[in-house]
Amino acid sequence: MGEFELIDIIRTRCVHARNDVALGIGDDAALLDAPAGRQLAVCTDTLVAGVHFPRDTAPDDIGWKSLAVNLSDLAAMGAEPAWAQLALTLPDADGGFVERFAGGFAELANAHGVALVGGDVTQGPLTVTVTALGLVPRGMALTRSGARLGDAVFVTGTLGDAAGALELLRHREAGTGDRPDAFPALLARLNRPAPRLAAGLALRGIASACIDVSDGLLADLGRLCNASGVGAEIAADALPVSPQLASSCDAGTCRMLALSGGDDYELCFTAPATRTVEIDALLADAGCAATRIGRIVTGASVHVQDARGNPIDTPRAGWEHFPR
Amino acid sequence: MGEFELIDIIRTRCVHARNDVALGIGDDAALLDAPAGRQLAVCTDTLVAGVHFPRDTAPDDIGWKSLAVNLSDLAAMGAEPAWAQLALTLPDADGGFVERFAGGFAELANAHGVALVGGDVTQGPLTVTVTALGLVPRGMALTRSGARLGDAVFVTGTLGDAAGALELLRHREAGTGDRPDAFPALLARLNRPAPRLAAGLALRGIASACIDVSDGLLADLGRLCNASGVGAEIAADALPVSPQLASSCDAGTCRMLALSGGDDYELCFTAPATRTVEIDALLADAGCAATRIGRIVTGASVHVQDARGNPIDTPRAGWEHFPR
Repeated sequence: MGEFELIDIIRTRCVHARNDVALGIGDDAALLDAPAGRQLAVCTDTLVAGVHFPRDTAPDDIGWKSLAVNLSDLAAMGAEPAWAQLALTLPDADGGFVERFAGGFAELANAHGVALVGGDVTQGPLTVTVTALGLVPRGMALTRSGARLGDAVFVTGTLGDAAGALELLRHREAGTGDRPDAFPALLARLNRPAPRLAAGLALRGIASACIDVSDGLLADLGRLCNASGVGAEIAADALPVSPQLASSCDAGTCRMLALSGGDDYELCFTAPATRTVEIDALLADAGCAATRIGRIVTGASVHVQDARGNPIDTPRAGWEHFPR
Repeated sequence: MGEFELIDIIRTRCVHARNDVALGIGDDAALLDAPAGRQLAVCTDTLVAGVHFPRDTAPDDIGWKSLAVNLSDLAAMGAEPAWAQLALTLPDADGGFVERFAGGFAELANAHGVALVGGDVTQGPLTVTVTALGLVPRGMALTRSGARLGDAVFVTGTLGDAAGALELLRHREAGTGDRPDAFPALLARLNRPAPRLAAGLALRGIASACIDVSDGLLADLGRLCNASGVGAEIAADALPVSPQLASSCDAGTCRMLALSGGDDYELCFTAPATRTVEIDALLADAGCAATRIGRIVTGASVHVQDARGNPIDTPRAGWEHFPR
């Protein structure tokens, strides 16, 4: 099976059509009609086998996740996703793998009206790079840099589930620990993250700053603070944790995973505290509750406090490539 | 050195500014102002170490080439390049490598007014994926599908130089053969391909179909014919070959390399034969001569003929991943 047969497999599975695609897969480039009055939001994320997902992850989950992590970036900008490019590098011309990969990719693409318009298939170590393109009314995008003193800090959904699944997978590999009943639910958070696109759209004109939590809350909120020139105080007891995670580990581990675990793909955002009720209602409509977890303060760092206001040590700042 | 320091190295070297970049590197996505009346042309190409370039290729050449192969796709569409995303996967946090890589990338980006607006840096086997975005007036893009019976077939520049360099590199590895004086010139064609952007722009409204020659003339012209539902006859003696290549190998090898060698990044296009003089003048202005090499015929395949009109066997169709 050659490169072009593999591309055909992808093309026949990713069939979402959009009127604004003048020319899709199959020429030297795709041709797209960007509407007037909108800005283009463009992001690129790479997943490397053994680094961003366990090597034995199911192909359809890899396909889903490779698009999800990019749609999550568009969600954090308040952009509506439109088109995607897929660069798939794989060791062998494994048609079955590509079929299942494309199936998972298409499932998420179809759910959000995203047309796959081009890309590249090459031979090499398993690596997936997706570029997602979205649209946002001019000047309405959410960025990392708008947080102001006194703003409240919110996060959508629950934190730490994906990292919890990863911990349980590691224990299995080490041959220690039983697998709790909640494991499948946690694993689904790791393998099939749900980009918070509806929440991102709902927050336009309301959130002062926004980022998606891909590397851990502390790391990503730290970046938001850095871009905004502010600090943040987080109440450890306010961190939203799923019942599944809570039933799978002790409270200290839960907290650590919620603060530092990667792969959550929730949105962390800031807004005037006076808008909390409005935000609750809007995000309920978007199917994704938000929790107020702290506030923006002067300074340049993120502090975590216990119920008495005492600082909690946070040793691990979150995932980074090439750690020292 | 961490991921974000590496990104900073790239950012400080890729500094081309454009008024239409509302938000560049550093947020969840870039924000771009696409002008009204233009279509967006988007392409993505991946280079894998040891597959698309020899592992000992200089980092600045890898950087240049990773952008060049994408700009070549935009050239083939008659699009004007505007923005790029860079996904760089590398085994170690090698700041020196990234600095030189970014230098080569920036050199080409600056030459063509391309702003690097985002991307991803990850740890893994050396792989580079670039997505390039360009602009073309609505309905004016060159595609592969417009070739008509009787059209003449042209190619820009010269063919086979890059493949010639690769052959010489292989001979060196095998310890056979001297290196001819022309080797540096041929190697420059392999490592620093010049995307034919000015030629692509000049051909808007004139060429009926266009493709860039990345996998070899026979393979790529075959794709153009396939998309257009036609065949082609090529005159072997008309194939443009550089004096450097001609001085480096015998006539038969030259012809084989010109027909089947990859990595040329010339444009192969079709147009009414009556426009040949006009094309000559326009491409001379674009700094890139075109040679008429054949014509479009009925059928579905590309035939090569010698000076007497006899068919020439063409065993190798060009580069393909996952060959049988």
